Amino acid sequence: MLMRLSLAALLLAGTVPVAIAQRAFPAPVDPQVARLRDAALKDDVAYDIVEGMTTEVGQRLAGTEAEARARTWSAAKLKALGFKNVRIETYRMPVWVRGEERAEIVAPFPQKLQLAALGNSGATPATGLEAEVVIFPTYGDLAAAPDGSLSGKIAYVGNSMKKTQDGSSYGQAGVARFAGPALAAQKGAAAIVIRSIGTDDHRLPHTGTTNWPAGVTPIPAAALSVPDAKLVEAMARRGKPIRMKLLLTPRQVGEQESGNVIAEVPGSDPAAGIVLIGGHLDSWDLATGAIDDASGVAITAAAAKRILDSGKRPRRTIRVVWFGAEEVGGFGGRAYAERHGRERHVVAAESDFGADNVWRFETAFPASAKAIGDRLASALAPLGIVRGSGTAGDGADIGPIVAQGVAGVDLNQSGLDYFDVHHTPDDTLDRVNPEKLRQNVAAWTTMLAIVADAPEEIGPVERPAR
Amino acid sequence: MLMRLSLAALLLAGTVPVAIAQRAFPAPVDPQVARLRDAALKDDVAYDIVEGMTTEVGQRLAGTEAEARARTWSAAKLKALGFKNVRIETYRMPVWVRGEERAEIVAPFPQKLQLAALGNSGATPATGLEAEVVIFPTYGDLAAAPDGSLSGKIAYVGNSMKKTQDGSSYGQAGVARFAGPALAAQKGAAAIVIRSIGTDDHRLPHTGTTNWPAGVTPIPAAALSVPDAKLVEAMARRGKPIRMKLLLTPRQVGEQESGNVIAEVPGSDPAAGIVLIGGHLDSWDLATGAIDDASGVAITAAAAKRILDSGKRPRRTIRVVWFGAEEVGGFGGRAYAERHGRERHVVAAESDFGADNVWRFETAFPASAKAIGDRLASALAPLGIVRGSGTAGDGADIGPIVAQGVAGVDLNQSGLDYFDVHHTPDDTLDRVNPEKLRQNVAAWTTMLAIVADAPEEIGPVERPAR
Repeated sequence: MLMRLSLAALLLAGTVPVAIAQRAFPAPVDPQVARLRDAALKDDVAYDIVEGMTTEVGQRLAGTEAEARARTWSAAKLKALGFKNVRIETYRMPVWVRGEERAEIVAPFPQKLQLAALGNSGATPATGLEAEVVIFPTYGDLAAAPDGSLSGKIAYVGNSMKKTQDGSSYGQAGVARFAGPALAAQKGAAAIVIRSIGTDDHRLPHTGTTNWPAGVTPIPAAALSVPDAKLVEAMARRGKPIRMKLLLTPRQVGEQESGNVIAEVPGSDPAAGIVLIGGHLDSWDLATGAIDDASGVAITAAAAKRILDSGKRPRRTIRVVWFGAEEVGGFGGRAYAERHGRERHVVAAESDFGADNVWRFETAFPASAKAIGDRLASALAPLGIVRGSGTAGDGADIGPIVAQGVAGVDLNQSGLDYFDVHHTPDDTLDRVNPEKLRQNVAAWTTMLAIVADAPEEIGPVERPAR
Repeated sequence: MLMRLSLAALLLAGTVPVAIAQRAFPAPVDPQVARLRDAALKDDVAYDIVEGMTTEVGQRLAGTEAEARARTWSAAKLKALGFKNVRIETYRMPVWVRGEERAEIVAPFPQKLQLAALGNSGATPATGLEAEVVIFPTYGDLAAAPDGSLSGKIAYVGNSMKKTQDGSSYGQAGVARFAGPALAAQKGAAAIVIRSIGTDDHRLPHTGTTNWPAGVTPIPAAALSVPDAKLVEAMARRGKPIRMKLLLTPRQVGEQESGNVIAEVPGSDPAAGIVLIGGHLDSWDLATGAIDDASGVAITAAAAKRILDSGKRPRRTIRVVWFGAEEVGGFGGRAYAERHGRERHVVAAESDFGADNVWRFETAFPASAKAIGDRLASALAPLGIVRGSGTAGDGADIGPIVAQGVAGVDLNQSGLDYFDVHHTPDDTLDRVNPEKLRQNVAAWTTMLAIVADAPEEIGPVERPAR
């Protein structure tokens, strides 16, 4: 009311742009939603999950016994938290495991380097591989190299990454990792080392999967830590040929078992559909995966537990899925969709971008349910969360469900520091700020309280093509 | 003059404490000193030295061929910069080298750990060593353990370190590294792992020398990265026995050659004595030693070069020494004192605390030369450097010369972030802020301009015992 009066006064004074004046006034916030949101700012459940998973399980590479231990731990935890229908659903998938990894510059300036093999990297001979290094400042420079020009050489690709709030620079820089190795192999390279796809300057390399199209034989492929990459680039500026010795002994160990862990807050109206939320349980093998993605599974489960414990059954069933094998190719998300794709999902949302504050939300609702987005805007604003102008449905694990036209809400975390740590040995509990984790839980609790109870029917949406 | 009037006005108004009013007014700053100081804020020589040494040499562990390459590189660099009497002076010293190093928690929660052997660590069997871990939160707790109580066990010592401006917490926490391994060995431990003596939370362990008194047989001794140490402590809080597997294969390789690199700015009055400055050329083996201590050698040489190039020969000879083998026990400093201790040194100053801004200076002058300190205070103040109330003469390398009663000036760098990086794989060029390096060069240039040209005789000093 105060705002209405003030706005009127400002309009009279002629100082408010028309665009603002024409906007609808904020939707009111349901006091029960506000209470749930504010109570969630004192949440300890999410941190407890992250602390427990990182301490008692640690790294949980997809398809390994560590990931299996993580499933057992998770099912027990979700049961202990009071969730219903807790279960593990397994599937098979191909598994790659890291071996030894060493690198050094042999000439002109002998120095040891820190690096990590990329997921699906080929192996060097057991005695290593020594070759001349060809420097490509960017992925585009590699793409421009003539076929066969890299025969017997080690390709180096810089393609340095800058920080962005929305993390979009990951796609831009990351192509050097996603596609660089295959491209170098096609041009005859014996191996490839890239500058880590990361925004830090610590001696900790960023791993991650690389892809080999059919017919391309994998070559050894690894990421140097950013300082090591800068060192190689500094040497290259001296103009003398650089020789590198590389030892990488990863291997493919065939089809192994992975799985998803599922838990539910049952809804009162089965016909109203399922609200699917979650993150991924597997992690890279270099660290305990605190922000990628113990935080995501913890945030979503802690928020769902707040609805579970609210004393009022939500209209829609909230299904929490801790997906397996996301990092290595989204196997858990596809296995879930194959098994559950015919159930009526009405909203899907994923948390897989660390543990920093949520700063923005996006929605993709059908026109008939657009008012839900307005209510979210009002209720999330006190958490410092603004409404975006894009669409929602982001996330590798919910991707196959979203592709069916299921509505979505994205709660975007700040990406500024995420790629300092992403896929490095530094992804430990130390990176999780308990206060920021609580802000996330409050955002997700707010979202669930509104979406799971929304009286509107939530039908399918069409998303614009990108 | 303006200040004098203002102060008088304030005194009349009765608002200035007596202690301030009674202080002497600042000594005037020689315009030539001010010009040299301000020009040094644009220095590029120091950064060029650090960049070159870290790129073209890299790690330079004492007594190894890498340190020998560093001496060759350094002598060539100092000659190219125009210094006189550039020479290498060698000596012999015992050398320890790192081997393989791996650690994992076997039970109750299998996890791999990041660690680094401490200098002079013993070795495990080639197949490793598995034992129960006994947790000591502090060095004092280890000291209180009964003799023989650690038989066959691995001792863990926490003794966590906090940041301090003057770095004094290093001594406090560092005793766990300096003396903890010998103490654990005396109590029968099979091995010891400590929490890194560091203030960061990255997965990068801090190495450093440990000491074995005569009669104590070295045991395997290593430092866990801080996050790994916190993980072990979190596991310990669960109350179940912890078993660790440890593989460390360092070895002593006997007496090897090390050396000091010396360069001079000749003075006009040989009887006025030598101003000795420098840092240490060797580094730990885990990184390129950019802040420890390429920065120190670079800062002192860059400052001396500014005096060399000033167009006016200083009264006293400035001798720049890049000491060898500091990290592993101060061999270079002792070798220098043995060879040159009978020459007339009048002031000694060392830069071996990173590359952060100088925030304070201390002096130790005889009463007859106290005015030099007053002139330093005036000239350093515009760089944000305050006068301390302690004494000067700090530094492992100048220690043996200082012990003869030589006067000293300490230009203290901020220690707040130094121990984030100290002795870790992260000590690379990325840690050097060019602007802060220039502030250091300006401080050292100012100090040299005043001290090397001071008309006062600078006789011996007596320092208070600590």
